Amino acid sequence: MSLQLAAHDGPRLCIDLGALEHNWQVVRGVCPGSRVGAVVKNDAYGLGVSNVVPQLWQWGCRDFWVATVDEALAVRACLPADARAAGLRILVLNGLAGLTAEDFAAHGLTPVLAGPHELAALTGYAARHDKRFPVALHLDTGLTRLGFGTAELAQLQSGSRLWDDAQVQLWVTHLGRFHDPEALQCQRQRERFVQWTAQLPRAERSVATSSSVFAGPGWHFEQVRVGSALFGVPIGAHAAELLQPVASLRAPVLRVADVSEGTEVGYAGSYVTGGPRRIATVAMGYGHGLPFSLVNCGHLILAGRPAPIVGGVAMGMVGLDVSGYAPGEIQPGMWAEVYGRQQPLQTLAAAAGVAANVVLALSAALAPHRRQCGAAETMEAA
Amino acid sequence: MSLQLAAHDGPRLCIDLGALEHNWQVVRGVCPGSRVGAVVKNDAYGLGVSNVVPQLWQWGCRDFWVATVDEALAVRACLPADARAAGLRILVLNGLAGLTAEDFAAHGLTPVLAGPHELAALTGYAARHDKRFPVALHLDTGLTRLGFGTAELAQLQSGSRLWDDAQVQLWVTHLGRFHDPEALQCQRQRERFVQWTAQLPRAERSVATSSSVFAGPGWHFEQVRVGSALFGVPIGAHAAELLQPVASLRAPVLRVADVSEGTEVGYAGSYVTGGPRRIATVAMGYGHGLPFSLVNCGHLILAGRPAPIVGGVAMGMVGLDVSGYAPGEIQPGMWAEVYGRQQPLQTLAAAAGVAANVVLALSAALAPHRRQCGAAETMEAA
Repeated sequence: MSLQLAAHDGPRLCIDLGALEHNWQVVRGVCPGSRVGAVVKNDAYGLGVSNVVPQLWQWGCRDFWVATVDEALAVRACLPADARAAGLRILVLNGLAGLTAEDFAAHGLTPVLAGPHELAALTGYAARHDKRFPVALHLDTGLTRLGFGTAELAQLQSGSRLWDDAQVQLWVTHLGRFHDPEALQCQRQRERFVQWTAQLPRAERSVATSSSVFAGPGWHFEQVRVGSALFGVPIGAHAAELLQPVASLRAPVLRVADVSEGTEVGYAGSYVTGGPRRIATVAMGYGHGLPFSLVNCGHLILAGRPAPIVGGVAMGMVGLDVSGYAPGEIQPGMWAEVYGRQQPLQTLAAAAGVAANVVLALSAALAPHRRQCGAAETMEAA
Repeated sequence: MSLQLAAHDGPRLCIDLGALEHNWQVVRGVCPGSRVGAVVKNDAYGLGVSNVVPQLWQWGCRDFWVATVDEALAVRACLPADARAAGLRILVLNGLAGLTAEDFAAHGLTPVLAGPHELAALTGYAARHDKRFPVALHLDTGLTRLGFGTAELAQLQSGSRLWDDAQVQLWVTHLGRFHDPEALQCQRQRERFVQWTAQLPRAERSVATSSSVFAGPGWHFEQVRVGSALFGVPIGAHAAELLQPVASLRAPVLRVADVSEGTEVGYAGSYVTGGPRRIATVAMGYGHGLPFSLVNCGHLILAGRPAPIVGGVAMGMVGLDVSGYAPGEIQPGMWAEVYGRQQPLQTLAAAAGVAANVVLALSAALAPHRRQCGAAETMEAA
C-alpha cells in the first residue's frame, strides 16, 4: 500500500460502478424510444471523466455532453480511437465560445450554439470544406441563459443562408424549473419548444434531463441527457426511489478528546459545550467541499450512527460530538461516512442549505483520493 | 495558443508572483526576530504547490506547513534534491495519522503530533535507529481540535520516556479566534501556551498565523506560520492595508440577451425581471467554486464596473444584469473579473456569507486554467 493510502489523514471518495450501471439502465428503461446521453461536464460532476466515460461507452452510451472544449477533449481522450465511427458524439454546451467551426470539426466535437453571435463563425464553411458543419442549437424557451430567443428564430428558418454552411443535428432547450417538470413554467417551455421547432428545419430534439426524464414520455423527444440521475443524485421524488448512490465519501477521525463544560469547539466560539463532552476531530473541511454553512448542524456517520457536527467547518477539519458513544468506541483512525449509503448526499446537502450537486461536484472533484469500488466495500468503508 | 486557451468557455486563474513576494516580505518585516513558515496545505489554498513553493524557497522560506502526507510529498517534489541540507523542514499538521515514525523519517517529514494516541508509534525508535526522531507537538490550548490538552501534559514532561525516542523541535498551538488575537480567549490561549511550554522540554514555539502575526511581537515567539497573508487574503484589519492580492479569477461572457418584463432568469424563478433588461451569462458556477449562496446578491466586474448577479448560481453559469451598460458594450467573449484587483476576494465572499478562504481554496483549486502572471496583466485581463 502506498504511504498516502496507509495514512488516515484526509477524505477518500469511492465510486460504485455497479450503481452507475444500475442508474444507466434505469434511465434507459424509462425512455425506451429515445437516445440517452450522459452529461459529464465538470469532470463528470467531480467523479472523473476517466472513471465513468469508458464504462458508459461500454454500456452503449454514444452521446456525451460537456460544457467546455477542455472537457470535450478529456472525454475524447478516454475513448477508443475509432469511437466516432462507432457513433460517438460529444456535445459542447457552452457553444463555440470564440473557436472556429474548423476547431470543433478537427476534434469531432459538436457545439451547441449559444446564440446568434455564434453564427458568423460558420459562414463559408461549406465553400472551404465542400460539406456542411454539423451543429446543435440551443433555444432559450425561458431559462434566460443560453440559446436563441423568440426574436432570433427568424435567423434559423429553413430558408436561411445559415443552412448552406451548417447542418442541424439537434435542437436543445433547458428547463428553468428543471427539478419540477410539472410546474406551469415548464409546460410553457415545452409548448414553446414544440411550436418553435415545428417552424425550423427538422432535427432531433432534447429537453429532458434528470428530473423530467422520469416525468413521462411527453418529455423525452428523440434524445434525453442526464447527469445527476446517472450519478445517483435524485432530482425530484420519482428519481429518489429508483436510483442508487454512486459516490460515497469518508473521512478519518484524527483525534478524540474529552472536554469539560464551557469549552469552545472550533473557530470563533461558534460552539461552547453545555457540559462534559467527547469531541472527535475529522479530517474533512470546506477545502474538501464540505459546505461552510454546516455550523452546528448536520451529521456525519460514525460507527453506523449519526454524529452531530459541532462548531464550524474549517479548511481541513470539522468537529463531531461523540458523547453518545461508549467510552473508547470512537478512536483516531476510524472512518466517518460524509455521504454514501448510510447518509444520502442529499441529506447532508439539505442540512447545509445547498443543492445535492453542489456537495457532489465540489467534494468529489477535491477528494485527494478517488477510486472505483463495489457497493459492499462502500458500506464497509464507513 | 492551445485550443483550450483560445476558447472563452470557462474561468481562468492568474497568480501574481510579485504580490506573493511582496506579502512574503511584509510578513518577514513585521516579525524580524522569528522564522517565517509558509502554510501550503490544500495545494497552497488552491493556488498550486508547484506554483508557489519553489518561489518561496528561492526567497528564503525553509519551513512549509501542510495537513497531510500527500501534500508533504508534493512540496518535497518541487524543491531541490539537496533542500534538506539547506534547511528544509516540512511540518505535517494532521500528525502521524496512522503512519510510523520511520515513514516520516524516510521522506524527511516532521509530524505535528495530534495527541497522546500518536506516542506509541515512537516507542523504540532510538533503539532501532540509534538516534531520536524529530517531532513537533500540537498543544490544545482552547480550539478543541488537535493536540495535547491540559490533562495530557504529564506525558510530555522532561522526565518522560517519550524523550528517549523523540526530540521535540517545536511546540505548536492554534487560536480559536485566529481572526481576532485581541479577544480575551486568545490572550488566555497564549497564557496557557507560555505556562505549559515553560514546564516542558525547551524547543521553538509557534502560535502566530496570518492575523496574529500583525498583532505585535508578543505573538511571534520563534516561528510564525502564514498562509492567508502570503496569498493576499487579509485576516483582520491590520493585514488588509499591507497585503496585495495574489489570486485573480476571471470568467467569460457566453451570451448577452435583451429580455422583456416578467422574464425568469436562471433556475427556479429566483429572479423575475421587473422591466426590460439585458442579461449577460457568464461561464462561472458553483462547480468552479462560486458560492451557491450568491442568489440575487453580489457582483462580478465587467468593463471596470460592478454588474449585479441575478438569479442563482448554476454548476457552470451565472447571470449578470448588464442593463446599465451602453447597448453593445457587453459582448460574448469579454471577461468578467470574479475577484482580483478590482473586486477583492473578501468582498465577493462577504456577499456570499462565507470566509474569503472558502472562495479562494475552492475557486483556485477548481479553475480549469491556473497560470502565473504579473499585476499589469491581472488588471488588463478583466
